[in-house]
Amino acid sequence: METDTITAISTPIGEGAIAIVRLSGPDAVSITTQLFQGKNLTEVDSHTIHYGKLIDPDTKEVAEEVMVSVMRAPKTFTREDVVEINCHGGMVSVNRVLEIILSKGARLAEPGEFTKRAFLNGRIDLSQAEAVMDLIRAKTDKAMSVALKQLDGRLSGLIRSLRQDLLETVAHVEVNIDYPEYDDVEEMSHEMMRQKTKEVHAEIVKLLGVAKQGKILREGLATAIIGRPNVGKSSLMNTLVQENKAIVTEIPGTTRDIIEEYVNVRGVPLRLVDTAGIRETEDIVEKIGVERSRQVLKESDLILFVLNYNDELTDEDVKLFEAIQGLEYIVIINKTDLEQKLDLEKIKELTDGNPLITTSLIEEKGIDELESAIAETFFAGDIDTGDLTYISNVRHIELLKQAVASLEDAMEGLEIQMPLDIVQIDVTRTWDLLGEIIGDTASDSLIDQLFSQFCLGK
Amino acid sequence: METDTITAISTPIGEGAIAIVRLSGPDAVSITTQLFQGKNLTEVDSHTIHYGKLIDPDTKEVAEEVMVSVMRAPKTFTREDVVEINCHGGMVSVNRVLEIILSKGARLAEPGEFTKRAFLNGRIDLSQAEAVMDLIRAKTDKAMSVALKQLDGRLSGLIRSLRQDLLETVAHVEVNIDYPEYDDVEEMSHEMMRQKTKEVHAEIVKLLGVAKQGKILREGLATAIIGRPNVGKSSLMNTLVQENKAIVTEIPGTTRDIIEEYVNVRGVPLRLVDTAGIRETEDIVEKIGVERSRQVLKESDLILFVLNYNDELTDEDVKLFEAIQGLEYIVIINKTDLEQKLDLEKIKELTDGNPLITTSLIEEKGIDELESAIAETFFAGDIDTGDLTYISNVRHIELLKQAVASLEDAMEGLEIQMPLDIVQIDVTRTWDLLGEIIGDTASDSLIDQLFSQFCLGK
Repeated sequence: METDTITAISTPIGEGAIAIVRLSGPDAVSITTQLFQGKNLTEVDSHTIHYGKLIDPDTKEVAEEVMVSVMRAPKTFTREDVVEINCHGGMVSVNRVLEIILSKGARLAEPGEFTKRAFLNGRIDLSQAEAVMDLIRAKTDKAMSVALKQLDGRLSGLIRSLRQDLLETVAHVEVNIDYPEYDDVEEMSHEMMRQKTKEVHAEIVKLLGVAKQGKILREGLATAIIGRPNVGKSSLMNTLVQENKAIVTEIPGTTRDIIEEYVNVRGVPLRLVDTAGIRETEDIVEKIGVERSRQVLKESDLILFVLNYNDELTDEDVKLFEAIQGLEYIVIINKTDLEQKLDLEKIKELTDGNPLITTSLIEEKGIDELESAIAETFFAGDIDTGDLTYISNVRHIELLKQAVASLEDAMEGLEIQMPLDIVQIDVTRTWDLLGEIIGDTASDSLIDQLFSQFCLGK
Repeated sequence: METDTITAISTPIGEGAIAIVRLSGPDAVSITTQLFQGKNLTEVDSHTIHYGKLIDPDTKEVAEEVMVSVMRAPKTFTREDVVEINCHGGMVSVNRVLEIILSKGARLAEPGEFTKRAFLNGRIDLSQAEAVMDLIRAKTDKAMSVALKQLDGRLSGLIRSLRQDLLETVAHVEVNIDYPEYDDVEEMSHEMMRQKTKEVHAEIVKLLGVAKQGKILREGLATAIIGRPNVGKSSLMNTLVQENKAIVTEIPGTTRDIIEEYVNVRGVPLRLVDTAGIRETEDIVEKIGVERSRQVLKESDLILFVLNYNDELTDEDVKLFEAIQGLEYIVIINKTDLEQKLDLEKIKELTDGNPLITTSLIEEKGIDELESAIAETFFAGDIDTGDLTYISNVRHIELLKQAVASLEDAMEGLEIQMPLDIVQIDVTRTWDLLGEIIGDTASDSLIDQLFSQFCLGK
C-alpha cells in the first residue's frame, strides 16, 4: 500500500476562472497548513472550506489567494485525506501553487493515481475506475449515461453475480464429489454444471450482443463521407451538423484545428472523420490521395457514399464501390432535384443490399430517411441506455469473449461426459477472466497500464 | 443592484480531472438543492462540502456525481451566496450540469460577472478587479507578483491617499476662502495648494516612471529576432529558450500551434514573436515578406538584429538598419568563431549608440553579455517587484497621464496667480481621474466594458 502524499493540478490546462491543485495522502493537510496563512488547517472540521493566502516558503511572500477544502479520510475520493486548493485560474498561478506544495514534500502524482488509490483502497473496483475516465472522455450524453451507470456499479454487480454463480457451482460440485451420499451424485453434478454454465453463457452472450453499440456510444461512430467532387459531400456534412446538435470538437476555440466533429443523429454519436479536409476542398479523394482515402475508409465504422443523380456513373464511382466492399456503408444519391442521368438499376446492383437513400440536400429532401438509415444500421432503430448494460470498453469485450470461449469449452466437456475435475478448470478460468474486469484478479502491471492512460490530476 | 442568480463553468474548457460550475446569487443554494440527491443544502453550514448526485429534472436520472460547496453571503467572492459544483472534468459532464442548473432558473453569467458583483457589492475596487484578470493572464512570476499586490490593494491604497490629499486641500482652501480670518489667507491658500499639487504631481510622476517596466512585466517584452538567412536567428532563439526557463506557450500541448514563446531573461519576460516562423524557415524576412516584417517590427518592444561576423555587410543589412531606426534594438554580431569579414567600424556607425554584442552561439560565447544588455535596456539591470508599485495597466497609465496634465494646468495657474476657484477645477478633475482608476468615479459603460474582457466564469 502506498502511503506518501501525492499532488497534481486537477483542472484542465488553460486560462480559466478557477484552477485546483489537489493533494491526497497522510500529509495532505499538514503540508497545506504549513503554507497557509489564515488558520491551522489540522484543527478544522472535515469537509470545510477556508479562505486564506498561500505563502511562498522561500520568499515569505504571498504566492496566491486561495480557498482550501479539507476532506479527511475515509469519506473522500481516494479514502485518504484530501485537500483541494482552489486558486485563480492562471497558468502561472496554478503552477506556482503546485511548486510550493511539491517543495514541502508532496510527490507529483502519476496520471490516474488519485483514482488508482480509490481502487487500491477499495472504494471502487476496476470497471468503476475505468468508468471515471470514460465519464471525462464522454463525447455525448448517451456515452456519459453508460459511463455513469458503470461508475454506479451496474456492470460490477452483474459480473459479481455471475462470478458468484460460478463459484457456488464449483464449490457445490466439489462437496458432492468429496462426500457422495447418493449413487447418482456424478449425474446430478454434471446436470447442475450444465445448467449453470449455460445460464452464465447466455448472460455473457447477451452482454456482448450490445457491445458493438456500447462501443459506438462510448467512442462515437467513425463516419467518413466519400464521393467524387461536387456530388454534395460538403452539403451533406453541413446538413448533418446543422440539423443535429453538434456535440463537441476536439480542440475547442481554435476552429482551424477541428479534426473531428461530433453530431448526434437520433442518439447515435457520429464522429465525422476528416471534416476539415472535406470542408476545405469539397473533395476528400482528390485531395488526400487514394492511399490516405483507403486509410480513412479502414478506420471508419460507417461510410456515407454520395453519388450525383445528375451525372452518369464513372469508373471512379465503381472503384469507390470496390473500395468499400465488406464495410458498413450507406449509398446516398443526391441532387434528385436535377435531371436523372444516373443508372439506378446499376447502382442498386452495386449497392448489394446495403441501404440506398435518395436525397436532394438543396431542397432538404430525404434527410429523415438518411437519419433513420444511420440509426437502423447499428441500433435497429431504437437506442435505450436505460434498460441495457452496455459493455463499451474494448478490454471488457475481449475478456467477455474469452469467458464465452472458456465456458463453451466447459460445455463441450460436459457434453462428452468429461470428468468434472477437468471441466472445472474451464469454469474456474471463466471466473478468473470475469474477475479481471472488476480488478479482483487483475495483475499489477495491467493495473499500472490502465491507470497510466488516465489524465493527470484524476 | 442585480439580484438574480448567475451561473457559469469556472474551470478552463477541456478534459481534466475536475470541472466546476459556479453559482452566485440569492437562489444559488435553493436551485442546487432541488437537483441534489443527498441532503437538504439549505440547512447545511456555510463553507461546507457535500457529496451527492445531481439529478436531471427531466429524466429523473443521475446526471453526475458531484461535490457541492456551499458558501453563504457575505464571506464569499461575490459577497452573495455562492455554490460551487465540482464534477468529473469531461466536457459533456460539465455542460450537462450547467444545463440543468440553467433549467432551474439560474441565468448564464456574462464574462467577468462574478468579479463584477464583487466590485458592485463593494468587496473589491476596480483596480483590484482588474488585478484578478491580470492574475489569470499572468505569463511570469513577476507579472503575477505585480497583480497580487494590486489585488491586495497596494495601488488602491496609494490612489486613495493621493485623492484624500487633494480633497482635503480643496476643502481646506474653500473653508479659508469662505471664512477668511486673516488678511493673508489668499496667499496662504495659494501656498498650500502649490505645495500639495506639487507633492501629488511628484508621486504620480514616480508611478509613471516605472509604468513602462510594469507593462513589460505584465505583458512580456515583445521581442523580434531579425537578420538575413543563416546568421543564427534560430540558434539565438534556441539558446534563449534553453538557457532560460521557457515560461508558457499560448496553446499548451499542441506544439504545432505555438505562436509565441515566453522566456525569462534575468526576470524580464521576453515574448518571442513569430517563433514558429523562425523555427521553420530560419528566415523571417525571406518567408514573411518585407511588409509583414515591418509589421512585426512595429509591434515589437525590442528587436534583436543578428549579423554574421563571417560575412560582408550587404544592402539587405543596411535596409534592416534603416527599418529599425527609432526602435529599441540590440545588434548581435554572431559567428565570431569564424574569420572576420564584417566591417565592425561601419557597424558601430550604423548601430548609432544602441547596444552592440558579439557572440559565438555555437561556442556559447557572449550570451551573458547579451542577457545583461536585454535586462539593462528596460530595467537598468535590476528588477525588484518588492519595493515599487508597478502600474501595468494601459487604462491606469492613461488616467495617470491625464492626471499629471491636469495637475500641471493647476500648477501653471498657481504660478500666474490665477484665482483659486479656477485652479480648483483642475484639482477636482485630477481627483476625478484618479477615482476612475479605482472605480469610484467610473461610468457604468466603462465598467461594463472592462468586465466584458474577463473570461467566462470569473
